[in-house]
This record gives sequence, C-alpha cells and structure tokens, in this order.
Amino acid sequence: MEILKDKCISDVQGFKAIGIAAGFKKSGKKDLALIYSEKKAVSAGTFTTNKVKAAPVLLNMEYIKNENTQAIIVNSGQANACTGKKGLKDAKAIAEITADELSINAKEVLQASTGVIGVPIPMEVMKQGIKKVCALKSDEGGSDAAEAIMTTDTKTKEITVEIILGGKKVLISGMAKGSGMIKPNMATMLSFVVTDANISKAMLNKVIKDSVKDSYNMISVDGDTSTNDMMICLANGAAQNELIDSENEDFIIFKETLDFVNKELAKKMARDGEGATKLIEVEVVNARDVQSAKMGAMSVVSSNLVKAALFGSDPNWGRIVCSIGYSGADFDPDKVDVYFKSSIGEIKVFEKGMNVYFNEDTASKILQEEQLVIYINLNEGEYAAKAWGCDLTYKYVKINGEYRT
Amino acid sequence: MEILKDKCISDVQGFKAIGIAAGFKKSGKKDLALIYSEKKAVSAGTFTTNKVKAAPVLLNMEYIKNENTQAIIVNSGQANACTGKKGLKDAKAIAEITADELSINAKEVLQASTGVIGVPIPMEVMKQGIKKVCALKSDEGGSDAAEAIMTTDTKTKEITVEIILGGKKVLISGMAKGSGMIKPNMATMLSFVVTDANISKAMLNKVIKDSVKDSYNMISVDGDTSTNDMMICLANGAAQNELIDSENEDFIIFKETLDFVNKELAKKMARDGEGATKLIEVEVVNARDVQSAKMGAMSVVSSNLVKAALFGSDPNWGRIVCSIGYSGADFDPDKVDVYFKSSIGEIKVFEKGMNVYFNEDTASKILQEEQLVIYINLNEGEYAAKAWGCDLTYKYVKINGEYRT
Repeated sequence: MEILKDKCISDVQGFKAIGIAAGFKKSGKKDLALIYSEKKAVSAGTFTTNKVKAAPVLLNMEYIKNENTQAIIVNSGQANACTGKKGLKDAKAIAEITADELSINAKEVLQASTGVIGVPIPMEVMKQGIKKVCALKSDEGGSDAAEAIMTTDTKTKEITVEIILGGKKVLISGMAKGSGMIKPNMATMLSFVVTDANISKAMLNKVIKDSVKDSYNMISVDGDTSTNDMMICLANGAAQNELIDSENEDFIIFKETLDFVNKELAKKMARDGEGATKLIEVEVVNARDVQSAKMGAMSVVSSNLVKAALFGSDPNWGRIVCSIGYSGADFDPDKVDVYFKSSIGEIKVFEKGMNVYFNEDTASKILQEEQLVIYINLNEGEYAAKAWGCDLTYKYVKINGEYRT
Repeated sequence: MEILKDKCISDVQGFKAIGIAAGFKKSGKKDLALIYSEKKAVSAGTFTTNKVKAAPVLLNMEYIKNENTQAIIVNSGQANACTGKKGLKDAKAIAEITADELSINAKEVLQASTGVIGVPIPMEVMKQGIKKVCALKSDEGGSDAAEAIMTTDTKTKEITVEIILGGKKVLISGMAKGSGMIKPNMATMLSFVVTDANISKAMLNKVIKDSVKDSYNMISVDGDTSTNDMMICLANGAAQNELIDSENEDFIIFKETLDFVNKELAKKMARDGEGATKLIEVEVVNARDVQSAKMGAMSVVSSNLVKAALFGSDPNWGRIVCSIGYSGADFDPDKVDVYFKSSIGEIKVFEKGMNVYFNEDTASKILQEEQLVIYINLNEGEYAAKAWGCDLTYKYVKINGEYRT
C-alpha cells in the first residue's frame, strides 16, 4: 500500500468531483459538493443511529438499496434535519434535479446535508447550485469538494492510497468532515470514499459494516451523535481487477486498506475536533475481551475530565483510571498499568493499580506534544482496541457557547 | 413537611457534628468532619459503581452490614483511591482510631475521603485530627462539618426538614458535596443524611435504594463517575415515633420526605458543578416507559453541546432534539414538543418534530436566568422523569485543565 500525498477523490479512475460556493453559507465559502462516477458504481453505507434522522439520511437508507449509485450531492450550511415532511420532499427533489442534470435515475443519487438543524434547504439556491456542479464536475475538483463539505472544520480531511489487486493498480480515496457532535455510532461526520476497485455490492457492504466499527465509531469529540451522519463508499470497477465476490485474498487486502483509510480519516476528524489542540489516542491492551478493550478506550477518550487535563498537559492518571473504572469494562483494578507516550518519549505513571513515582516535569513535557497516546495495559487477556479523541479547550466552549443568530 | 432554614445535621436529636482544619488541605481550610450519634443508629448507604473503588468505599461496604453505626469520619484533600493495600490498611486504622476515641466498635464507624486520587492519607495528620474532632463534636458543629467535606465546591450543601410521624416531630437533615466527576450511579459525591426517625435497618435500606435512583443518579455535571461516591443515612430513633418496620403510612411519609431531601441536595450539587453558572432541569413527560423518560432526560442534561449552548443562552433546540435522539429512549420523533422555561416565562420552540416560529430574543432572555427548565413532551404515554445538571463554561475547562502540581 502506498499513500499518494497529492491525490484526491477525482484522481480515482472514472470519478469526477467539484465543490462550489452555491450560497448556502452566509460566509460565501464553498458549500456544495458533487461526487460523480461516470460508470455505474456499487455503493455501501452506514448511517446515524440517532432516533432523529435527517431527511437525506432517511432517503439514502432507501436509495442505497438500489443496485447502482452514480452521484453523491452534499451541501453544508443547513442540515435538513427536523424539517418534517417538507424536508423529505425537498430531499426527493434534490435527488431528482441532480438525476435530471446527469441523465441518471433519482435512486442512483445519494445526498447529505450538514449544518444547522431545523432550517429548511433553500431550494432555489439548491437548484441553481446543482446545475452548476453538474456542469463543472472535473478530474481536478476533488479537493474543492472536500472543502465544500466543511462546517466548523478548520481543514479538509482527505487521503488517497494505492494498492495492487490481482496485478491491477487500484486507488481508494476518501474525504470526510467532522468537528462537533462527534461520537461513536456515527456523528456529524460525513465520510465519502471512492474506489475504482471491482467488488460486488454484497462484499462492499460487508467491508463497510466492519470497517466503521473500528474507525469512525471509535472516535469522540464531545459525546454527541448527530442526526446527519453517514459514511458512503462507491466502487466503480474501473480498475478492472477480477471481481471481488467472496472473502478471498483480494478481499482481505481491500478490507485492510479501507480500514486504514477510514482510520486515517477518523483520526483527522478527532484532531480537528471543535477547539482541539491535540490528537489523543487511547490504546487498551491485554483485555479479557474485545468489548472491554473498546469500552475502556472509548470511556477514557470521552471523559471531559481527562480531556481537560490533557489540554493543560496535566499527567492526571487518576482521571484515566477512574474513567476506565466506570466504562463497564471487565477488568481487575489491581492489575492495571498506565503509560503516557508521545514523539518525545514515554513514561509509566501507574502500575498494578497503584501510583508509581514518576517525574512530573517529564510527563508534562510528553503531554505538551500534539499527538498523545494513553497506553493502558489491563494485563489480563489478549484483546486490544484503540480510540481517538481530542482535548477539551476554552475554544470548544466558545464555539458552542456563543449565541449565533 | 416544613423546611427549617437555619438548622443543620447537629440540630437533629442525638446527633453531634464538627468540622475542623486538620491539615489535609494545603490551603488551611476545614478538611475533617465528624458526624456522631450518641445512641446506636441504623444505617443504609449506596456506593460508587466504579470498578475502581477507593479504600473507604470498600471498607464501608463491609462495615455497613453491621447492625449499628455511630460515627462517620470524612476528610477532604486526599481520596485514598488507587492506594492499594496500604490504602485499605489506613482506612482500617482510621476506623479503629475513631472508634477508640469514641469508645465504640470499629465496625460502627463509616468513613469517606475525597480529593486527589492516588495520594495516601497522611496518617499522623489523621490521627491528631480524629482526636480533635472527637473532642470538639457538638450540637452546633453541623455546618462546620458541611464545610469540611468540600473540595472544589463553592458553597456548602445542607437541608433540614421537619415532619410528623405518628404524632412525633421527626427531623431529617442532610449535607453533601459535589462539584466535579458528577454523573449518574453516584459521583464524587458525598451525601450524608441523619434523622431521629425510628426505622428498621431493612426499611431504611429500602428507602435509600429507591431514593438515590431519582435524585443523585439523575444529575450530571460532566459525565464522570468517581471512585469515592457514597450516600449514607443514619437513623437513631431519638424521635421515639413508632418503629417503622413495614411499608405503612409513616414509611410513605418518611420516604417522600427523604426523596425531597435527596433531590434538593442533588440539585444543589448540579447548581454548584465545576464552573457552572446555571442549574438546568430537564423534564421529560408523556414517555412510553419510565426508562425512556429517564434516558432521555439524562442524555439531554449530559450533552456538552446543550450545556455549552445554555452557557451562551442560545435557544438551540436542535441539540436538545439530537441528544434525546441518541439517548436510547423509545419515542416517535414526529410527536416531540420542546419548551424552555424559567422564572420569567416559557416558550415553545419545537412542535411535533419540527421547528416552530418563536421569538429568539424572548427565548434567549428566558435562558439568561440562573434556573432553567427544558421541558420535553414526547406525547406518547404517561411516564415522566427529571434530571439536573449545569452549563459547560470556560471555568470548567480552567478548573480541570490547569495543571496543578
């Protein structure tokens, strides 16, 4: 697997993309993106588990059952959530207008909206915008699309990798947005991955379902799960590798690569969490079972007290031990070891359920880095899990506490 | 039931108390409290569900099985959590020293520690302190005791009420501390309630178990459940009412009163959450079942996004609807109504799953008050629940993010 630094989704064979300022955002920034596959592509996706689902989510859950998908249209600024029957009618119209412009079927169009909840989509803006993106889509527009799906994100989140499947070069490229309302089970998290791999819809479904669990569902910015989350993958087969329709060797390579892509996008979201200054990875090892490893890691990375301590580079292991304690994980408190790690070194701060002497200055210096690992050894079994999050800062409160009219 | 404004736990017949500065806190503030019952009292309590339990919690869980309890000794400054075998040995010694000074059995002494995790109790300070509090305990020392159990609390939390049971005047008086690491299933929350009611240990156990569920377990400051939480109630029978040993009328009056006391103490904790400027009550009504009502209320009151919005008096109903959506509550999104209420008025902001037009200035003014209610009508069944919390502020981040050496 090779990471292609300067490539984006429109560099994948047969895919075009574009992002424009259509007028959804008052700021005048880019706010409408189109991803288009020239060939019919198979699609798979996962959607928010929130009981309150935005109109585009409800519609996609229906349309993704269609054998093929050729376009994804995404606006930022309004979320089309809690907009009732009108919201659903608007979503249907968005698919139809896009389909007309691209001469495809409405069920081959998936869509996403992100932004303020409860505000209807300005449909005239949407109509004009769709016409433009359908006309402007290109082989260079991928990064513009990645920019157009941003809300409070401070940077675009993109990754492209190349693998060889049965002698054929295959690209997998993804773009995502995150920032606030990020937490397991999908969040205000949009992630779109395209690939020219030749894979059946059934197999793609299987890969996506598994891959989401260890990537997007293991990040937390603030514990809130949004109404609009989705992860969608399109595979158009343009690479002409032998069709992956069973769990063969190619399937495994493809899955491992997609896992990598999804984890990288998830980490980019965690690092760019609202107000964040640090990416925090919590690694729980030697757990009795995978559930305990996952629950423990998610609990630590989600704790406000831990997150605030790390903002202040405070080696407060007490809060870490406390948060794994209430996580529901099954473990023996008297066996736990805890380490802090970063690029400048590592330090053990807790051993066999007790504090150990450590140099607090060294620990604090390790925690001043931008990428931290909290390494927790439960010393019990052989299961492990990783979760990602960010620190809790004044800026998070400012972003979410400022009354925006 | 009458609330006695200027009374405290030492005003309850047969109880003495005291709080002193023994030297556990560097600040020189009060840090050691004793509650003492002259007569043998029955006791009941609930303790943290955190897998990592502090030494005093582990010891209390054993000692509270004893038929009688006569003293509770509490220090603030060090939590005696994650202190291993030494911590447990220290806790036993604390009970023994106290018992010796009071000429009672060590098993009749319960204890609590609150403060920094991982630091052992300075036992010489403890020994001298215990001697002093045992000598100084008095009928006037209740509020000093309430002060001595504080950590980052900004004010004491006390309440005393009077009821009549079978013609006898009965007092119930409680004191508590809260602030950080507050969340359901007990938190760094210490609550001690004493009463001169005559009630059997079995009945007291029953009352406490139920009462905690709708009070302390329905508050959230930051979602963290501490290693040291406990709620203990002592009843010494000095009021000479007829022994409550079944679920008779007196039992019901006693239970309702204790529920009130516990809820008031819980609300005081929520209002005094670290950095909080507002008390937030979330009331979910007309739910399909009590679990849905409780999960919904707790989810909204725990959401960082909701809490930050309320800090800024932002009538952001979208975050409220979103957080009830991911709570696990069973409801139909298209039936939900949401109101904001405070002393200056109420306003409907969401109706039947959709935004309604409302005056944002009025809504924001309602939210500028210090006590807010988010009222959520699920319009489905007949179950209701209340939860309490506070806003998320810069100060919370400051308190928990400043590196304290």
